[in-house]
Amino acid sequence: MPLRGRPNIVTLLTDFGASDGYVAAMKGIILSLNPTATIVDITHDIPPQDIHAAAFVLSQCVASFPSGAVHMVVVDPEVGTSRRALAIATPDALFLAPDNGVVSLALSRYFSWPGTRVLAGPPHPERRPVPPSLRALAIENQSLFLSTVSHTFHGRDVFAPVAAHLASGVPLDAVGPPVADLNVFEVPNPLPQSGGAVTGWVVHIDRFGNLITNVPEGTIKAITDPVEVVLGGIVIQGLSRTYAEGGQLMALIGSHGCLEVASRNGSAAKVLGIERWSPVHVVPQGVKPAGR
Amino acid sequence: MPLRGRPNIVTLLTDFGASDGYVAAMKGIILSLNPTATIVDITHDIPPQDIHAAAFVLSQCVASFPSGAVHMVVVDPEVGTSRRALAIATPDALFLAPDNGVVSLALSRYFSWPGTRVLAGPPHPERRPVPPSLRALAIENQSLFLSTVSHTFHGRDVFAPVAAHLASGVPLDAVGPPVADLNVFEVPNPLPQSGGAVTGWVVHIDRFGNLITNVPEGTIKAITDPVEVVLGGIVIQGLSRTYAEGGQLMALIGSHGCLEVASRNGSAAKVLGIERWSPVHVVPQGVKPAGR
Amino acid sequence: MPLRGRPNIVTLLTDFGASDGYVAAMKGIILSLNPTATIVDITHDIPPQDIHAAAFVLSQCVASFPSGAVHMVVVDPEVGTSRRALAIATPDALFLAPDNGVVSLALSRYFSWPGTRVLAGPPHPERRPVPPSLRALAIENQSLFLSTVSHTFHGRDVFAPVAAHLASGVPLDAVGPPVADLNVFEVPNPLPQSGGAVTGWVVHIDRFGNLITNVPEGTIKAITDPVEVVLGGIVIQGLSRTYAEGGQLMALIGSHGCLEVASRNGSAAKVLGIERWSPVHVVPQGVKPAGR
Repeated sequence: MPLRGRPNIVTLLTDFGASDGYVAAMKGIILSLNPTATIVDITHDIPPQDIHAAAFVLSQCVASFPSGAVHMVVVDPEVGTSRRALAIATPDALFLAPDNGVVSLALSRYFSWPGTRVLAGPPHPERRPVPPSLRALAIENQSLFLSTVSHTFHGRDVFAPVAAHLASGVPLDAVGPPVADLNVFEVPNPLPQSGGAVTGWVVHIDRFGNLITNVPEGTIKAITDPVEVVLGGIVIQGLSRTYAEGGQLMALIGSHGCLEVASRNGSAAKVLGIERWSPVHVVPQGVKPAGR
Repeated sequence: MPLRGRPNIVTLLTDFGASDGYVAAMKGIILSLNPTATIVDITHDIPPQDIHAAAFVLSQCVASFPSGAVHMVVVDPEVGTSRRALAIATPDALFLAPDNGVVSLALSRYFSWPGTRVLAGPPHPERRPVPPSLRALAIENQSLFLSTVSHTFHGRDVFAPVAAHLASGVPLDAVGPPVADLNVFEVPNPLPQSGGAVTGWVVHIDRFGNLITNVPEGTIKAITDPVEVVLGGIVIQGLSRTYAEGGQLMALIGSHGCLEVASRNGSAAKVLGIERWSPVHVVPQGVKPAGR
Repeated sequence: MPLRGRPNIVTLLTDFGASDGYVAAMKGIILSLNPTATIVDITHDIPPQDIHAAAFVLSQCVASFPSGAVHMVVVDPEVGTSRRALAIATPDALFLAPDNGVVSLALSRYFSWPGTRVLAGPPHPERRPVPPSLRALAIENQSLFLSTVSHTFHGRDVFAPVAAHLASGVPLDAVGPPVADLNVFEVPNPLPQSGGAVTGWVVHIDRFGNLITNVPEGTIKAITDPVEVVLGGIVIQGLSRTYAEGGQLMALIGSHGCLEVASRNGSAAKVLGIERWSPVHVVPQGVKPAGR
């Protein structure tokens, strides 16, 4: 029986793709142990081993799930090594994931970082103490695993059975001992620049080719209107309210609450030839952006 | 509790793709409001903003669902503008969609059109009165929406919560006021030609490269046997009964009940170099087709 | 009501792709007849008509499902012809599939083959008697089908309704008469070679480009350590334990319990330019492999 107040939901986020039997094997295990579980695919199309894409997609949707859902994230290049597998409880959700930073963005509100810095390329995970509002445990209780555990498929052999048990109401403490720290990476806050401007970064490119940045709506509102958005050598004047109202290239506040650059009839990423982690400058009209 | 006779099913049809967190966000909202809903993905791989592909795929499968299922269609290039969001009830199903024509083919049996005409390119939606056998309402009751509604993601903020509520039994009238007209496009019936021939159009190309036309089985049966199918400068003699019985190129009645052109070992679309909305002529053997 | 001990699970494995309405149509039918069924997609991305890929993916995951699940496999190039549709019961599972060999690998433990042989290209199905531990029936009882059956979409019109009925507890015997034989193909066991070596074959290439062979862990353990793995003109020294511990090219025991060749940062299939059914030799270090 699911615990009172814990819905019997398991979400799956992996880089396994949709064409093999890997995902179905995990679902079969979950349903074997927890026949009434509601299983939801977040996506299985994370580019192989792309921790940052997985972290973003997870952060994009977890807040929409009922409190207490179990989110199982298996993007795990180091499967079978001594890397730890963690269960992390927030006040709202339960995450099961390898200790490689893949939950960083979903947990970002619980961490504070010493300062701001320039982002040049993908941020690297570093060990940080578990904040007081979270609990993290090492998944070590083999009696919750499949009886035989392979070296290459812990999604099926470890994470799926543990997720099934937790969603069905097994207490979190059953999975293993608490840990004091975990690996997280920081996407630094946008950097304030002279003249009231800020510099942020493209943190995700979605299936439409929209460039999603880490500059929140609030930061933009604090900049003297009208603003200009500068990236890839292009200046976009002002913000559009909707995709339909923009032009060939437009800047707008996306569904994630942050600045997004989109193209009306295609991919902004292709139009601009821009990649993830590129800088984006938001400046009051007429101010020249800092840096490149 | 679902209404007596209304199954608690929500189907999703979007152009959001499977690689981001957009679809999962909608599912999380639905399960938050309606924990026992059965959610079925129709597809999320509609080419971005392709209203016509979405309309076809919807029409391909809605009849297979239990009566009263809620079908949520979010292919919505004008999200955030003044375009209306509609809830449309037929005797069998409930559709939630932007008012852009995406439900046209699923509803085509309820509309009659003034006459026949030649189709040259994609049909455009036009405003038509709501037929007496349908009910259409503007989705305006904000108490059914998420508390904050973005300008760019009504799938999550408007359609998903309204679908969850309706599937769980909230009366249709709660969503907003009735409307008198809605946007639909017509795919004209095949044109009768001299000599007993007809001209129809390719209305969809599926994942196998099969060319699906709008020429119904009944129309073909009315043509003097044996028939020839003419498209892309090629003549196909007679109809095959199954894919296995046909040759490199074959014409047959597909699962949609209409003429389809397929290739035994590949894509008829590629073999013929043909695109959607191309004309197809069905003629009694020896009659020369009209037009190009 | 599901039978005591038969979980109400239907899995779907097809080559229909995810972009059309075909899969949703099948799900709609299943839910119409069996509203509480749990439907699990194995995959719909089998390359069109690729019986061997479907057979492998099925064998990769069925053991993970609860006993009594109904597995519906619709890769069916001969749909609409006189090919039989079969229901096959094992002690653990129920398979519904066309009689074209697509269940061969899922059932391989129940068949013994006269001897070993060299595999040169894809194995062909041949008629074999139904083993005593299995039951196979021809799906012929039209009262379980949709009232109209198309010639091209038995997934919707035959397999889906029969699967829905069986999962909900309709006795297996209701589907039609028992049959005495069925089509299965053999992937021969690895061939013993001189000097204690064996030759096996690449039987599947997964989404990561991993080359999955039919050489089981036990066979490799019987070879004098250290071993070399030879394929595509390349020699890989020894086995890695995990993907992370290997190099540019590595050999390891994969999640299927068989030898796998992988590349740390990409696709082994691309690095080696190797295709399915290529031979792979496992030899004690210093022994020259037989054959090419």
